[in-house]
Amino acid sequence: MNKLIKEYIVSINSAIEKEDFGDKPQVLYEPIRYIMSLGGKRMRPLLSLLSYQLYGKNIKDIIPASLAVEIFHNFTLMHDDIMDNAPLRRGQQTVHEKWNNPVAILSGDVMLVKAYQQIIAHCPKEKLTDILEKFNQCAIEVCEGQQIDMNFEEQEQVHESEYLEMIRLKTAVLLGFSLEFGGILAMDNEADQALLYQMGVNAGIGFQLMDDLLDVYADQEKFGKQVGGDIIANKKTFLLIKANELASGENTVELNKWLAASDFDKEEKVNAVKSIYDKLNIKKLTEAKMNEYFKKAFQNLEDLDAPSERKIIIMDFFNYLINREQ
Amino acid sequence: MNKLIKEYIVSINSAIEKEDFGDKPQVLYEPIRYIMSLGGKRMRPLLSLLSYQLYGKNIKDIIPASLAVEIFHNFTLMHDDIMDNAPLRRGQQTVHEKWNNPVAILSGDVMLVKAYQQIIAHCPKEKLTDILEKFNQCAIEVCEGQQIDMNFEEQEQVHESEYLEMIRLKTAVLLGFSLEFGGILAMDNEADQALLYQMGVNAGIGFQLMDDLLDVYADQEKFGKQVGGDIIANKKTFLLIKANELASGENTVELNKWLAASDFDKEEKVNAVKSIYDKLNIKKLTEAKMNEYFKKAFQNLEDLDAPSERKIIIMDFFNYLINREQ
Repeated sequence: MNKLIKEYIVSINSAIEKEDFGDKPQVLYEPIRYIMSLGGKRMRPLLSLLSYQLYGKNIKDIIPASLAVEIFHNFTLMHDDIMDNAPLRRGQQTVHEKWNNPVAILSGDVMLVKAYQQIIAHCPKEKLTDILEKFNQCAIEVCEGQQIDMNFEEQEQVHESEYLEMIRLKTAVLLGFSLEFGGILAMDNEADQALLYQMGVNAGIGFQLMDDLLDVYADQEKFGKQVGGDIIANKKTFLLIKANELASGENTVELNKWLAASDFDKEEKVNAVKSIYDKLNIKKLTEAKMNEYFKKAFQNLEDLDAPSERKIIIMDFFNYLINREQ
Repeated sequence: MNKLIKEYIVSINSAIEKEDFGDKPQVLYEPIRYIMSLGGKRMRPLLSLLSYQLYGKNIKDIIPASLAVEIFHNFTLMHDDIMDNAPLRRGQQTVHEKWNNPVAILSGDVMLVKAYQQIIAHCPKEKLTDILEKFNQCAIEVCEGQQIDMNFEEQEQVHESEYLEMIRLKTAVLLGFSLEFGGILAMDNEADQALLYQMGVNAGIGFQLMDDLLDVYADQEKFGKQVGGDIIANKKTFLLIKANELASGENTVELNKWLAASDFDKEEKVNAVKSIYDKLNIKKLTEAKMNEYFKKAFQNLEDLDAPSERKIIIMDFFNYLINREQ
């Protein structure tokens, strides 16, 4: 990873560590410190810093403001983990498991307010309305995405376009806002601000498609989770949706058999579904769709009215993420 | 009720009915319309209008802004009902019962964002930071109050002062903010804005003490819920806390017996605990505390730099609430 980016992440982590979040009642604030300390790439505040530096600005100025997107992101994780009954988050107990559901609901609520506090305390007044309007829109879309994702579980057929719209909302718009946020704080060029947003959305959709691929094709040694987890859980990923769309005859029968199976050997199911994917060329199709979005993101980056030597840092970061686990 | 106040409530309800809230996914937005349509006194936006009119302003100007406090209040109800496992709200199914927990969590999250949207879209820019800072503080305190209230369930002894602080946070500060909000929108007199906040907090604590009293002493014919519900559930109200503090000898033994009982006749328990309250003069003590807060609230009202004929409307409203169910 680029040395500069490593420095940025260190700065973000050190700002998070210094953040107090709150005191009493302890059971309300402990979970906030806990989830914020679980780590992760800090991708969202990092994107804000990366777009800010594009315009020759000193990232130190906006580190406190940039924490807003990290706090918001962790609020969504805390609430999503309740809804998804997830026992683990980054290898550690989720908040509702370590404490309980009411604590996870309420601490999450406080985090959402804290994200607003962070923006309001650390953004210039003349840009505040614009930033908040965009943040609100993004926050609502993230909730819509989560609901649509939950709806998919009950929905028999999910179309490719519905899936892409769901991941745009659930994952990509927050990356878009994070980049735009740094841009709004750095300068007043609205065309560039819009391009930064688009870049984040395009990259975000690409990253989610990459996650879908990795869940099936990652090297188990390097992969943090169980490879094939999505297949085992019948998760409607881009791969399964494409397979459903393209399968016919025997492949349809075989795929439906595995989707309906309640008692099965996990490895056998993963291998069987994988072999259907192979027959239908799903890996290549997903890679092509993913690369289409990455290409758009890189085009957005190129179109920005900023110096090439500063754009390279973002390009390096995206390439690092893209090549990381493949 | 004062004719003017009835008109105000009609205006608020009509604005809520016209509000769209959102479209897709339907299961995210239906619960918002549902909870917002369950009615209630609309006390919080009403308080904003009442403080606004104090300064000779036309309440129509701030009806959209005032909805923010009603949306926020209903967000807290939606999430609190999950945490409290409440099956009913205003005689209707709660959202998590009618739909499910994930939907109630996520719709509530959207409502919190919508409260911010309402403020940001409908408040003058030059007052926005001030309003949002105060709203944030209030929102966080309401969450703290809810957590402290939940903690009380596990806590053996709750002191009177802890209880008063809990209801200040959980209930009263939002009434304080609602009044202050109307004041900030109406004028720039910071002393009056602070008095409006204090008036709301004092009245709010008084109203909660009144609720505690009514739960035991209300006329079952007029009371919406089961009289004695708090006693049956061992809810740590002001009355029980005072009784615990003042009881000695036989009364302590008797009170503890009923608090520990798991299999009991509800009516018998209510009557027994009530008779301990009577022996310890709990009703009078609670009324005295309640009146102390109401007196402070009326003093705050008197101290405001606004015309007496406009203050009378607020005084009438408070007196209506105070005498309503007694």
